[in-house]
Amino acid sequence: MVAPDTFLTDRRSRSRDELNELLRIPSISSLPEHAGDVVRAAQWTADRLKAAGLEHVEILATGGHPVVYGDWLHAPGKPTVLIYGHFDVQPVDPLELWTVPPFEPQERDGRIYARGTSDMKANLLITILSVEALLQTGGLPVNVKYFLEGQEEIGSPQLPSFIKQERERLACDVVLSADGTQWTEDQPSLLVGLKGGCGLQIDVRGAKSDLHSGLYGGAIANPIHALVRMLDSMRSPDGTIQVEGFFDQVVPLSDEDRQAIGEVPFDQTAYQAEIGIDDVFGEPGYTTLERAWARPTLEVNGIWGGFQGQGVKTVLPSAAHAKITCRLVPDQDPTAIVDAITRHVHRNTPPGVTVEVTPLPFVARPYLIPRDHWANAVAHGVLTEEYGKPPYYVRLGGSIPVAELFLSRLNAYTVSFAFGLHDENMHAPDEFVRIASFERGQRAWVRLLERLGERSTA
Amino acid sequence: MVAPDTFLTDRRSRSRDELNELLRIPSISSLPEHAGDVVRAAQWTADRLKAAGLEHVEILATGGHPVVYGDWLHAPGKPTVLIYGHFDVQPVDPLELWTVPPFEPQERDGRIYARGTSDMKANLLITILSVEALLQTGGLPVNVKYFLEGQEEIGSPQLPSFIKQERERLACDVVLSADGTQWTEDQPSLLVGLKGGCGLQIDVRGAKSDLHSGLYGGAIANPIHALVRMLDSMRSPDGTIQVEGFFDQVVPLSDEDRQAIGEVPFDQTAYQAEIGIDDVFGEPGYTTLERAWARPTLEVNGIWGGFQGQGVKTVLPSAAHAKITCRLVPDQDPTAIVDAITRHVHRNTPPGVTVEVTPLPFVARPYLIPRDHWANAVAHGVLTEEYGKPPYYVRLGGSIPVAELFLSRLNAYTVSFAFGLHDENMHAPDEFVRIASFERGQRAWVRLLERLGERSTA
Repeated sequence: MVAPDTFLTDRRSRSRDELNELLRIPSISSLPEHAGDVVRAAQWTADRLKAAGLEHVEILATGGHPVVYGDWLHAPGKPTVLIYGHFDVQPVDPLELWTVPPFEPQERDGRIYARGTSDMKANLLITILSVEALLQTGGLPVNVKYFLEGQEEIGSPQLPSFIKQERERLACDVVLSADGTQWTEDQPSLLVGLKGGCGLQIDVRGAKSDLHSGLYGGAIANPIHALVRMLDSMRSPDGTIQVEGFFDQVVPLSDEDRQAIGEVPFDQTAYQAEIGIDDVFGEPGYTTLERAWARPTLEVNGIWGGFQGQGVKTVLPSAAHAKITCRLVPDQDPTAIVDAITRHVHRNTPPGVTVEVTPLPFVARPYLIPRDHWANAVAHGVLTEEYGKPPYYVRLGGSIPVAELFLSRLNAYTVSFAFGLHDENMHAPDEFVRIASFERGQRAWVRLLERLGERSTA
Repeated sequence: MVAPDTFLTDRRSRSRDELNELLRIPSISSLPEHAGDVVRAAQWTADRLKAAGLEHVEILATGGHPVVYGDWLHAPGKPTVLIYGHFDVQPVDPLELWTVPPFEPQERDGRIYARGTSDMKANLLITILSVEALLQTGGLPVNVKYFLEGQEEIGSPQLPSFIKQERERLACDVVLSADGTQWTEDQPSLLVGLKGGCGLQIDVRGAKSDLHSGLYGGAIANPIHALVRMLDSMRSPDGTIQVEGFFDQVVPLSDEDRQAIGEVPFDQTAYQAEIGIDDVFGEPGYTTLERAWARPTLEVNGIWGGFQGQGVKTVLPSAAHAKITCRLVPDQDPTAIVDAITRHVHRNTPPGVTVEVTPLPFVARPYLIPRDHWANAVAHGVLTEEYGKPPYYVRLGGSIPVAELFLSRLNAYTVSFAFGLHDENMHAPDEFVRIASFERGQRAWVRLLERLGERSTA
């Protein structure tokens, strides 16, 4: 019988083909016209789990996009790990900024370009390949349950009730999330904090139809001007959020927290060059990493209204719209923040327009895992071995809503063990993943499962 | 030989068909893909002028959309009138708000619905039908020149140099503009003032591509926030324009001006109901009519950036854009105002983004005609006879850039004589014109040309 690593090496080319197959499915969860593609991605994943040797593989209805479940529970006395991931992806607009078709994966310079490569179809397949390698070369050293969802990119709206309802099936000692990143190609990291999130849409309406700006300009309210006033009032010129009540539940960063973040090297010049900006910008009194990792944010994700075509249209628009999402830190409550912003909008609505605020299906509580959690310690060891140096303890400004759900509903912490990198254009045009990360991830997951199997649950 | 009115009545149905034919040409001057349709509308108009009996009909190149010229100069000792109009139309977006296809004219309840009905293909055809009726029933009592353009809706960028170059061909005693409106179905009006205009586009850029709002939110500038800050800073909460230098050249309204405007009845309740708003909004210290007619304006016509689709996309956008047009009053200079706004934008650009300001091809100087101008007096008489009551002297918040050009280049004032009405959704979805206005306009133009012919130029 071959070793798991040999098994993985022998099927490298086939694994690459399988990744491309999954990437070709445009499983965009936010667009209703792609709902069938999300189901196709679920089916593909379920089939692949069965082929790997998982048992009880099922596609479960959630009331929204489906969940894929599967398990292998033949390691008595050993921990049960729940492997989490998602098979849905972000939309692709602005499509015109892609240099490759987003759902026709292309290899170039050791990278695979396609929507969903880094976030997170490569990471998802890494886990299946590793579990398969162990199963096919002697068996898994731990009990494994798979929980793969199709609505992560829209904030997992059905998951709170789904996880509650399926708590017995999903019961586990620890969750291993395959959604995330390492620090760099040379430097591992372990995630100890995730921001929460919430979102809302603002619709401002004026006259019942677009009007001639010459006839009505200056005499009635312009919904775009009303909207920019509301939005501008939400942040001060220096970037401090001005919404009343927004910071009420924020636990201030301790000196220890700030020191831990300060130990992570940060090269501002490289950061700026990478994303093409001349200067950073944010809340005074905090470093860039503190802003990104540990301070709440309020960002307009999109704005639109009136004429957007080429040339001139002298119109006074009848409506204007904006989408906002916030990233939250302990102990902010997503619902309370949406309420606070809604109140702010209504307080700042000028006369002559009506405004409607609609919460968006993006609701996540912030999450922290203790550095010294036992499974975190195992992951720390595996990463140290793979990279030849210990990981940084980092936080993420992004939200993985299920981490907090697993903690509150299953009483299980989530260890993040994933191999994306920050420069891989997640949520943006030309998303890619490094082929080297895809293969390193498979090795590391085999090691992780082996080491977790050294723990007894007796 | 029949009378001109009988001639017009006899061909009512054919005239209606001709109007529909012209309306079917989507001559949108602001969209490059419709440039061929603007040429088709020019050709249609030139053919129709020839059929009416005009001579020397030519389509003249301008460097932009073409001009149609034609004349009939066999009334020695009588005034020469230059009839002005345009055969281009506004874009149709938001298309989803139209209840009829914009370029398939439909008659309903005594109205014809289509883009370009009220502004101004019906008015254009009115003049041709009236001139034809006189020519075919005994001859024109004045010398007529036609000057019809295809770029009014984009601010007539080529016309200043074109009119200068063609000043001999266009020489006239007075211009009659067919572009405009009457006060109501029962109440005529004579236009004595037009606002000028100018426009610009603001493009704000941040990172080189859209980024994950969880990874970068709070840490770098968001171009949408930067844009809303700039735009918000341009007007105070009460609607007063805050751009430095904006009011420098404004001639304050005299007591006499304000009294003349005050004599025009204004029903605020009806005004609000018509356009579907709860309250008016504008610069403090002025009435709604003063704001609309005689005070300069700054309106955002369109704004866009980031994610505009359904659902959530947690993106930090790389760019945001806005289009602004201003309406100007004597003696504001369009170029100086664009410069002032450009300076304001640069002074209000926050760190972390770059901004570009591009003037839009909408440049018009404000214009006033003396109430007692001789041709204005003739128009006053004709309108009084047609409606059974004298017209109000009104101003228009809109811009008809050529009026000022005709005055400065040809030394001829422009009398506005047109039969659109304010509720006809000009520049908006479901534009329409009343069939009754179309027929009344033909009668009134015949009278106008007859009465102008009573004046000798000896």
